[in-house]
Amino acid sequence: MGSGAGADRNAPIGVFDSGVGGLTVAREIMRQMPQERIVYFGDTARVPYGSKSRETILRYSRQIIRFLMTRQVKAIVIACNTASAYALETVEQEFDLPVIGVINAGARTAVRATRNGRIGVIGTEGTIGSGIYTEVMQRMRPDIQVIGKSCPLFVPLVEEGLLHDSVTDEIASRYLAELKRHFIDTLVLGCTHYPLLRSTLGRLMGNDVVLVNPAYETAIELKQLLESRGLSCEPGGGEGEKYQFYVSDLAEKFTAFATSILPDAVRETRKINIEEF
Amino acid sequence: MGSGAGADRNAPIGVFDSGVGGLTVAREIMRQMPQERIVYFGDTARVPYGSKSRETILRYSRQIIRFLMTRQVKAIVIACNTASAYALETVEQEFDLPVIGVINAGARTAVRATRNGRIGVIGTEGTIGSGIYTEVMQRMRPDIQVIGKSCPLFVPLVEEGLLHDSVTDEIASRYLAELKRHFIDTLVLGCTHYPLLRSTLGRLMGNDVVLVNPAYETAIELKQLLESRGLSCEPGGGEGEKYQFYVSDLAEKFTAFATSILPDAVRETRKINIEEF
Repeated sequence: MGSGAGADRNAPIGVFDSGVGGLTVAREIMRQMPQERIVYFGDTARVPYGSKSRETILRYSRQIIRFLMTRQVKAIVIACNTASAYALETVEQEFDLPVIGVINAGARTAVRATRNGRIGVIGTEGTIGSGIYTEVMQRMRPDIQVIGKSCPLFVPLVEEGLLHDSVTDEIASRYLAELKRHFIDTLVLGCTHYPLLRSTLGRLMGNDVVLVNPAYETAIELKQLLESRGLSCEPGGGEGEKYQFYVSDLAEKFTAFATSILPDAVRETRKINIEEF
Repeated sequence: MGSGAGADRNAPIGVFDSGVGGLTVAREIMRQMPQERIVYFGDTARVPYGSKSRETILRYSRQIIRFLMTRQVKAIVIACNTASAYALETVEQEFDLPVIGVINAGARTAVRATRNGRIGVIGTEGTIGSGIYTEVMQRMRPDIQVIGKSCPLFVPLVEEGLLHDSVTDEIASRYLAELKRHFIDTLVLGCTHYPLLRSTLGRLMGNDVVLVNPAYETAIELKQLLESRGLSCEPGGGEGEKYQFYVSDLAEKFTAFATSILPDAVRETRKINIEEF
């Protein structure tokens, strides 16, 4: 993690995702740290990330961080599980500012929550295939048993708006069957789209299984990080728009979606050519 | 369409798609013109195209054509409905070689096939939203009634391998219900993935509805084009590998998929950084 020496405490936080999913993380930051300013980037021209290679996701993440640095951010949150899995370790060495992902915080909460030591993780093919959640959780507690399951249809189903639908129920019960057979008592929603399926997932898993949403814990981790480095925004500090939104495609569609899930209406989303960074 | 003046008749044909779907078009070219050489490009780092903007798809198409021209192709086939809808008209003006898409050929076949003048078209949000099939078919026959329906879940369902599955049946019957209410007698499979769902679609639509697969007619159109310009390959003509495959990500996964649908095993797929073109 970079030193961020000399950073402006009133500068914004950079948050990025492959598309709209990371808005669930931005929303938590807004709730928990209402004084902080945010520059959000959604890579809507190259979404999704979950089915692409480590090398490609690393290249995309570097481009986005270079772009966010032109917006003078003081820290970066990788609000995408796949990019956190593939890129965090490399980019935190390469860039001279603090970078956090969503995986450590989610893993820590799950390890604290489990009683029987059996934790399920659902996510994209990239996140699950990387084995990152298993690695991180077993580093925290070596006897933890982690059962990962990739759920490639969840993102398209969410984006099609089928949040409460018999088809989503059917697909979800197939994906979750294996996790239920392992008697997990904790389930990590390892993709930022999945909290939108929370009620379906909760019903299918039953009341005894704790669902962990990494967005919440990531915001807590960010808050602690900024405080420990003297980088928390002063009340009313900083200049310009409080929340800025950028995408690589379809700015208006993004504005509408973001307005539907954030506490305040999004006035404008700017489109940039991310390949130039 | 460019003149292609001075082109080498033994040069390969460039074929591109957002990913693997265009292989159904490449397969038809291989069948109908076994002497022709092909350079295929699949944009697997930025797939899918169907939910992205015209401007973005046009930029991607230009990059890919510039790349294919470095491979000395004599003509280009845009083997993707979305890219054909958004980019064909522009790029055929901009580049000095013949470019064809998949839409004209599919539209012509459907207009010939219909008896009652009511044609359904299914495709991505981009293809259907562009209205291109309606425009092209009504130019051929103004009294044709075209009912378009975007089917955003078909590509993820195909890529998840659920070709014969109750969930795919359920989703397909929802998508097709509107088309059935209009008593269409012809259905254009306006996305190169959809022929893989042909048996499900045929069963749901019934025997009286003709399914049109543009890949077949596109290969015929290409053959006529090459003949009319004296650009057909001489038997045994040309040098180097007969079929070359390039992608922007996940070359091995592509090789496996391509081998499963092409007549001969694909030996090698090369990965390139398409953003550099």
